[in-house]
Order: sequence, then structure tokens, then C-alpha cells
Amino acid sequence: MRVIDEKTITQAAIEQMSTTENPRLKQIMAALVQHLHDFAREVDLTPEEWIYAIGFLTQVGQTCSAYRQEFVLLSDVLGFSSLVNALNDKRIKEGRGPKDQDTKSSLLGPFYREDSPKLQLGDSIAAHEHQPEIAYYGRVQNAAGEGIPNACLQVWQTNEDGKYDTQVYGGEDTDARATFYTDSEGRYYFRTVRPSSYSIPTDGPVGDLIHAQKRHGMRPAHTHFLISAPGYRELVTALYMATDQYIDTDTVFGVSASLATEPAGDATSPFPELPSVRYDFALVAARAGETSGRVGADPAQLVKRAAEVVR
Amino acid sequence: MRVIDEKTITQAAIEQMSTTENPRLKQIMAALVQHLHDFAREVDLTPEEWIYAIGFLTQVGQTCSAYRQEFVLLSDVLGFSSLVNALNDKRIKEGRGPKDQDTKSSLLGPFYREDSPKLQLGDSIAAHEHQPEIAYYGRVQNAAGEGIPNACLQVWQTNEDGKYDTQVYGGEDTDARATFYTDSEGRYYFRTVRPSSYSIPTDGPVGDLIHAQKRHGMRPAHTHFLISAPGYRELVTALYMATDQYIDTDTVFGVSASLATEPAGDATSPFPELPSVRYDFALVAARAGETSGRVGADPAQLVKRAAEVVR
Repeated sequence: MRVIDEKTITQAAIEQMSTTENPRLKQIMAALVQHLHDFAREVDLTPEEWIYAIGFLTQVGQTCSAYRQEFVLLSDVLGFSSLVNALNDKRIKEGRGPKDQDTKSSLLGPFYREDSPKLQLGDSIAAHEHQPEIAYYGRVQNAAGEGIPNACLQVWQTNEDGKYDTQVYGGEDTDARATFYTDSEGRYYFRTVRPSSYSIPTDGPVGDLIHAQKRHGMRPAHTHFLISAPGYRELVTALYMATDQYIDTDTVFGVSASLATEPAGDATSPFPELPSVRYDFALVAARAGETSGRVGADPAQLVKRAAEVVR
Repeated sequence: MRVIDEKTITQAAIEQMSTTENPRLKQIMAALVQHLHDFAREVDLTPEEWIYAIGFLTQVGQTCSAYRQEFVLLSDVLGFSSLVNALNDKRIKEGRGPKDQDTKSSLLGPFYREDSPKLQLGDSIAAHEHQPEIAYYGRVQNAAGEGIPNACLQVWQTNEDGKYDTQVYGGEDTDARATFYTDSEGRYYFRTVRPSSYSIPTDGPVGDLIHAQKRHGMRPAHTHFLISAPGYRELVTALYMATDQYIDTDTVFGVSASLATEPAGDATSPFPELPSVRYDFALVAARAGETSGRVGADPAQLVKRAAEVVR
């Protein structure tokens, strides 16, 4: 009979899972068991701590609703979501040419909506805001630096109080979000108000963790972009306010240096009177076998599917 | 500005958690982040797989109720609960004498109840069973091999159909569970029927995982023992039927070789006419500062606390 102790248990578990038919599930679960067990051995996890963790994870699951995904939030504050994004970025680059300088991705976040108002280039996305305006403009382009006409840009951000419209209006109205299409040269340009930094939801178990860790729980101000075009991979990213006080300590680790920008006077802006950010987004072509940019990782659909799991 | 990529994200997350005041929480979370990130990097986890995991964990949390702890079950089938038990056994032995040959622990499981009937030594715990009987007998003793009088043994097991009373009667009646106290020489002896192997609950997300892994989901037949006495550490263990077909493939990895026994003819049994198992349980003395055997890891209380987390 097999001797199960604190060392042999790991191989015993992996062997019992070795009958898994799906090779990827088999690989993932074996690696997960190895790393989780290594973790428990390293910290010499006690039964009290184990039961605390069981209770915590149960609370996280029970905090989830059709409007809130606390497990995504947990993944975010552990840097796990950002890591999965970074691994995906790396995978996309593999085997592509050096000119495929696609834009860095960033977290989709929980405030994306599919049904944002379709506006005309130059419009303001801030329907209810009366703060000083800023402008975004630039091009959506391919690896060769050519503009992509009629590319779809979905943009969304907080108002000047650090709230998304879904938090203010509960889905009844929209604000500070819109869908644009690039012009014949791949250009986009629109107005908005400066977004604000804001706290992640801290009234649940993840908030308890954040507080115990003495973290501020804040995200630096940013505007989200979800950009797609036929024949290209969908890009989910965000542009961050470079001078935000939380720019270096984003509690969900979404900031990349190349995504930090600051609105400034700009004579070449379509809105020379407004502080403007110029940013050119680079899409990578979908690979053979990928029928559209949405094939593979479609974060929007994925978040929707995660919400559907909630009963 | 910090560059966050698939390598640097880990240190960034650990640094942001470095303000944690509780040193143990700080240590545990840093190790967890390191090992979880190592896992994701090793398998190059994709966004699709990540969202699948988010959905799975959410379902596990939402399957928990006051009567069901699906996260404990998940921990069990990953070998994680057994590992935490083994680490606890090892910790208890550290710094104790070589004579502290305490009995191996095993999983408490979800079928423990505090209010089992108090029976007299020699009684049968199987109120509703009519299968051939077996007997358990032996001593509860200390590290010196001396019997511990008036030690409390709580025992529980399945009926011959592989069901616990809580599954049959929903808490309205009890069967195949009892509380005994050892006699003046530390002896215990009682009758029961042979327990049966059984499947863990497979109608939830953990069952889906087990099925995808082509595991049988069975536990070998066993009788649970929770043994306590003033001045000693509480012992949670179980005795397994050595000839059970699942003895080497327990789906929750609870079996230790030293806990596998087989009822057999035994002229020295208090019930020489019955197939009997003799087993002497060794308790370890509670350490200075521990006011009772219940101090420290009290698995029964812990499982109760985990159930209370459910809202």
C-alpha cells in the first residue's frame, strides 16, 4: 500500500489525475496540484489557515452576481489577470515579424457594455459631464503602419467623480462611453472629460483582503479602448493618465509604461483648443485559420460567459 | 515608470502586498502569488482557460450551502486537504520524543455531527442495520503506552449501503454513529456493521472535474474516529477496510497504510464470535500553553466555521 505523507501526496494526486482524456486539462491540473502543494509546504499551512481560506473562497463565490464578479476581482488584485494578459500578448507576438509592434493590452475590467451609443468622429462621449474637456485622437493601423479604415473603437471611462455610468444609472442610461468607426485613413478623434482615479469595490471579501494588506485599492484614471476590424485580432487596452498619483501603484496592475499618456496642448490636434492625447493603436493581423479578430481570446465574450455562470 | 510584463508582474504584486501588517498573512500571500504565477507561466495559461477557471470557482462557491461545502470537496480531490493534514501531523511530531508515536490523522469529512448518541461500551452503533456485525476494540493510550481512562471516542461510518445517516434521514434520526468513553484502563470496544465504500457527491462542479479526469470518485470503506481527552491533542482519524477495492485509489487521499485494517477472527476480542479489528490509538500530550487537546487545530470546529461562512 502506498504511503501518503506530506511529500508523496503530490505525486499520488497527479497520478490519480493521469487518466484525464483532455491533454490540456491533464497538463493544467497536474501543474496546478504541483504548485499549490509546493505553496502549502513552503508556508507549512495549518488547518486553521486552510479553513480560513475555504471560508474566504466560499464568500468570494457567494458575492458573485449577474452584476459583480468577485473572483475576477480577486484574480485582478493578485496580479493574476494582468499576468494572463501579458502571457497572451507574448503568445501573439511569437512567430510574427519584428514590425508587428502591436499595442500593449490592458484589463477589460467589469464595466464594459456591448451596447454603447454610436457617435460621429469629433463628438463628445460625455453626455452628462460639464468639466473641462480633453480630446483623444490618432490612428488605428496595421503592422506596416497603414491606417485601417472603418475600424471599430469602443471607448468607455469614468466620469469626473470616478464612477462609470453603470454605477450611476444602473444600466438605465449611458454616459462616457461610445462606439466610433475610423475614417478612410484609419483616423479617430473624439472629445471627453478627464477620467478620475477610483477604488475597486471594497465591500466584499476581496475588499477585506485589500484592507488587511493596507493597500489603497485605487486604480489610476484611464479610458478603455476595445478596437476591432475584420481580419485583425481584437485589441483590449486602456490609456492611463501619466500624472495620476496612482500611476505606479495600480491595485490591479493594469498599467504599462507605453499606455501612460497625458493630455497636453497640441497644435496638430483636431481640437487644438483642448488638452489632447495622440495615440496610434496597432492591430495585428489574424492568423490563417482565424476567421476574424474575435477568434481566440475575446475578452468581452469571456466576461459575459463568466457572468452567465452565476445562478 | 515600472515595466509590467509576464515576468515582472510577480514581484510588483508581492511588493504592493508588502505593507501587510500581519506577518503571517504577508508571508502566505507572497508565497501564494509566487506559486500561482509560476503555475500560469509554466502552462502558459490562456484568457479562455482563465475565464473557464473563474466560472468554475464561482460555481464551486455558489454550490456551497449550510449542508454542503464544495470548496472543501475541491480541496479534498486535489489532495490539498490530505497535505494540510500531513503537514499538521509532522508539526505535531516536531520537538517531541521518539516515543510520541501518535496515530496518523485522516480527513474529518463532511458527515461529522457533534450530537451522536452516548452508548455503553459493547453496544452496537448500528441501530437500523441487519447485516453481519463486526467489532472494533483496543485502547486509547499516551506516549508511554499507558491507557487513558475516560477518553472520549466519537465514531461514525456509513451503513452497508454506503450512506451516512445524515444522507438517509436528513438529520431527523441517527444511525451508525455514537460517542463512547474508555474504561478505567483506557479500553474501548463496540460493535457495528461493515461500512461500505461510497462516491463523493458528484452532482456539482467538483463532480464535473472528477468525471473529466475519468476518476471513479470513490472512497474505500472506513469508520471515522474523533478521540479526545483532557490534556491531550484531539485526534481525528479513520480506520479503512484493507481489502476494499478502492484502498489504493481513495479519491480524496485519506488512507495511510497504518490506518488500513481488516476485521478477522480474533480469540482475544471482547467479541470472539465477530470479525474484529484491534486498534490502539495513541494521543500526544497537549503542549504547555495549550489548555486542552482542542487548542490549535480543532477540525470539527473548523468545519463548523466553514459552514457558517455560507450566507
